[in-house]
Amino acid sequence: MRAVDLIMKKRDGQVLNREEIDFLITGYATGKIPDYQISSLAMAVFFKGMTFEETGFLTRAMINSGDTIDLSDIEGVLIDKHSTGGVGDKVSLILAPLAAACGLKVPMMSGRALGHTGGTLDKLESIPGYRTNLSLAEFKEALEKIGFAMIGQSESVVPADRKLYALRDVTATVESIPLITASIMSKKFAEGAESFVFDVKCGSGAFMKTLEQAEGLALSLVETGRSLNRKIKAVISDMDQPLGLMIGNFPEVREVVSSLHNQGPGDLMDLTIRLTAWMVVLGGLAADIFTAEKLCREKITDGSAWKKFLENVEYQGGDIEVLLNLERAPRAQHIIPLKAENQGFLKRIDAFKMGLASGMLGAARSRKEDPVFPAVGIELLKVQGDAVKPGEELCLIHGEDLSKIDEVKKLLKDSYSFNEEPLPPGERVLKEL
Amino acid sequence: MRAVDLIMKKRDGQVLNREEIDFLITGYATGKIPDYQISSLAMAVFFKGMTFEETGFLTRAMINSGDTIDLSDIEGVLIDKHSTGGVGDKVSLILAPLAAACGLKVPMMSGRALGHTGGTLDKLESIPGYRTNLSLAEFKEALEKIGFAMIGQSESVVPADRKLYALRDVTATVESIPLITASIMSKKFAEGAESFVFDVKCGSGAFMKTLEQAEGLALSLVETGRSLNRKIKAVISDMDQPLGLMIGNFPEVREVVSSLHNQGPGDLMDLTIRLTAWMVVLGGLAADIFTAEKLCREKITDGSAWKKFLENVEYQGGDIEVLLNLERAPRAQHIIPLKAENQGFLKRIDAFKMGLASGMLGAARSRKEDPVFPAVGIELLKVQGDAVKPGEELCLIHGEDLSKIDEVKKLLKDSYSFNEEPLPPGERVLKEL
Repeated sequence: MRAVDLIMKKRDGQVLNREEIDFLITGYATGKIPDYQISSLAMAVFFKGMTFEETGFLTRAMINSGDTIDLSDIEGVLIDKHSTGGVGDKVSLILAPLAAACGLKVPMMSGRALGHTGGTLDKLESIPGYRTNLSLAEFKEALEKIGFAMIGQSESVVPADRKLYALRDVTATVESIPLITASIMSKKFAEGAESFVFDVKCGSGAFMKTLEQAEGLALSLVETGRSLNRKIKAVISDMDQPLGLMIGNFPEVREVVSSLHNQGPGDLMDLTIRLTAWMVVLGGLAADIFTAEKLCREKITDGSAWKKFLENVEYQGGDIEVLLNLERAPRAQHIIPLKAENQGFLKRIDAFKMGLASGMLGAARSRKEDPVFPAVGIELLKVQGDAVKPGEELCLIHGEDLSKIDEVKKLLKDSYSFNEEPLPPGERVLKEL
Repeated sequence: MRAVDLIMKKRDGQVLNREEIDFLITGYATGKIPDYQISSLAMAVFFKGMTFEETGFLTRAMINSGDTIDLSDIEGVLIDKHSTGGVGDKVSLILAPLAAACGLKVPMMSGRALGHTGGTLDKLESIPGYRTNLSLAEFKEALEKIGFAMIGQSESVVPADRKLYALRDVTATVESIPLITASIMSKKFAEGAESFVFDVKCGSGAFMKTLEQAEGLALSLVETGRSLNRKIKAVISDMDQPLGLMIGNFPEVREVVSSLHNQGPGDLMDLTIRLTAWMVVLGGLAADIFTAEKLCREKITDGSAWKKFLENVEYQGGDIEVLLNLERAPRAQHIIPLKAENQGFLKRIDAFKMGLASGMLGAARSRKEDPVFPAVGIELLKVQGDAVKPGEELCLIHGEDLSKIDEVKKLLKDSYSFNEEPLPPGERVLKEL
């Protein structure tokens, strides 16, 4: 078998079989097939796609390129959630303890995101003392005792994905649905989960800008899962506007705390409960989504999700006193309001621009070496549909270093648009597959 | 400027400008842009193409990657011919002396072909003593005195093409018309020619299998030439069947000798005269193709083309005695006839299979290190349209090593097809652009 013939086969729109995909990925992972062949293959896949079965073979081959986390001795159903990422997306921090409170086991491993929004690990680490580098034994103990644990991805899991992703990043081949699918799925399955709920974000603040793109990815995830005999539920959710009211690492933790006290913003509560409920259904702990949603709401109101969260923070070394007394928690040095200039009804807050502004304040890193400031971010005071008068505060900027404040303010101003007439509220959940 | 952004631009179907193409090619040639980015770019070009102007920029950037041969002090019009290669294609060896006899200067530099058919250099080197590695001074002297010289390509000319071609070969990106165009044109222009005639071969024995593909390449060559202010004439010629009667290195030289005595097979004579006549027209030595063809036929019949050929062979160190007394020339050890089994009219001789068989006998190399046997090959005794009876000889196999003779015979048998009714002869020249 020769790599060049397989590249040609894909280039000419043919389907690669399991042996061929194994040959390519194993060869790449072991250094026998060079970068320059895999990058031209990736470009051919960009143009010609892959069937769901092919994507399944690719997923499996990538899993086999490294270690897998064996969680088979954990009692209970192992179910995870994955999101393609968005602005103000703190869902994982509420969903994981909630799912655990419902009786599921959630082995959550997160990447350290680059780009316009902080990753889950950055949010967790904004809690003083919180360790995301548990050993495998600790990870399993936390799963058994508490029902969930949240750690960083291990270097030894799916090394082919690590290598392939770095290559795709510099060869303009990131935006390929089968390659995105295999990258997401291989990591989740290698990390020991049995099935997943995927939150496919869609809109200006997300990787998928249009509903059509998001549907393509959602379908690919669900059907590739099917080809691997794994149950996958995909929820396409709106990320054209930030989720909830807080953007930034510790600011989002504050919103997690209020949400676990059933006082979170409606859009965040509804989406989180919907996603958790699908996990409950996938795990067989409820017969249907309505029963599952009811169970989730109960586990919020009776305080058991909050209790799970505190147990987890304590286990992973975080300072729960900070969470119990939020007034003592870290706060940014400067809190600067942004005031409305127009009169009208808030039509839209552009998530992408909000995310950029938050990144500019230091909430996210654009290079691996960059520091992340836990307390900085943006606090929304008005949301879509709200009536606004000139001079009213639209949001608060939480900043440490004000050197870029003018740029931040300009971005924030640009992210607001208004309407003369009142508007119906938008839906977060756009579609479920 | 970042390579990844330019790859993305091409991937998304946009046109690259001159600076962008210079950046990519200069960066690649100097090692600043890695193989893996250029291979994904090449795959994007495969799918999205390039405008003629873009292809012109690419050609220029490739020329600028290395040395150019300065022939500006040679008196006369410098015109060359390029062929995409075929089975039994010995046109260059007749055309170059003929064009010189007409008064043109032909600076011919050839590559050493790999694949199913020997290259021009192998054919020339089958003449005992013939040197294709003239120095630049010798090359120029031969051009001035004789009017043509035939040498191998210099390593220092168009190094970007050398590097890019090697990469395309292993990344399934050879079959891209703009990339093929820039590869051919950059070499020809860097080697000092002012304009060219391109013989675009089409059919089973050629790189371009269909007329549509050949037309695409011909148009790209002519229009890219126009964008560079160079006059180019493209002739699409049939390569579904071998050209002439002889296939193999010295066997083809024998046919060159008879052709230069005006005794070559009609298809070979006609095509060679047509191509040379277009060179004469491009060079301004005749007002139209009819006058030019007449001039060419005269230069064959009056022996002046043959005289030029002998002068060249002598200058380049070849043994002209062998050419003057062909009976003394090297002959293969075994000459084995292939006999017809069927009755009918010869419908077609598959050029590709003939080429493979000839390569199997040792007339071509599949790896750089392989030796080439000068005397081996195939001599056709029947051609398209001929009536054939069972037991009649179809061709003669000239072989040295008979270890693969059964395979060769099977290939040859398979390459013949017959018709019950007589057939009109096919045309060699299919189209001119």
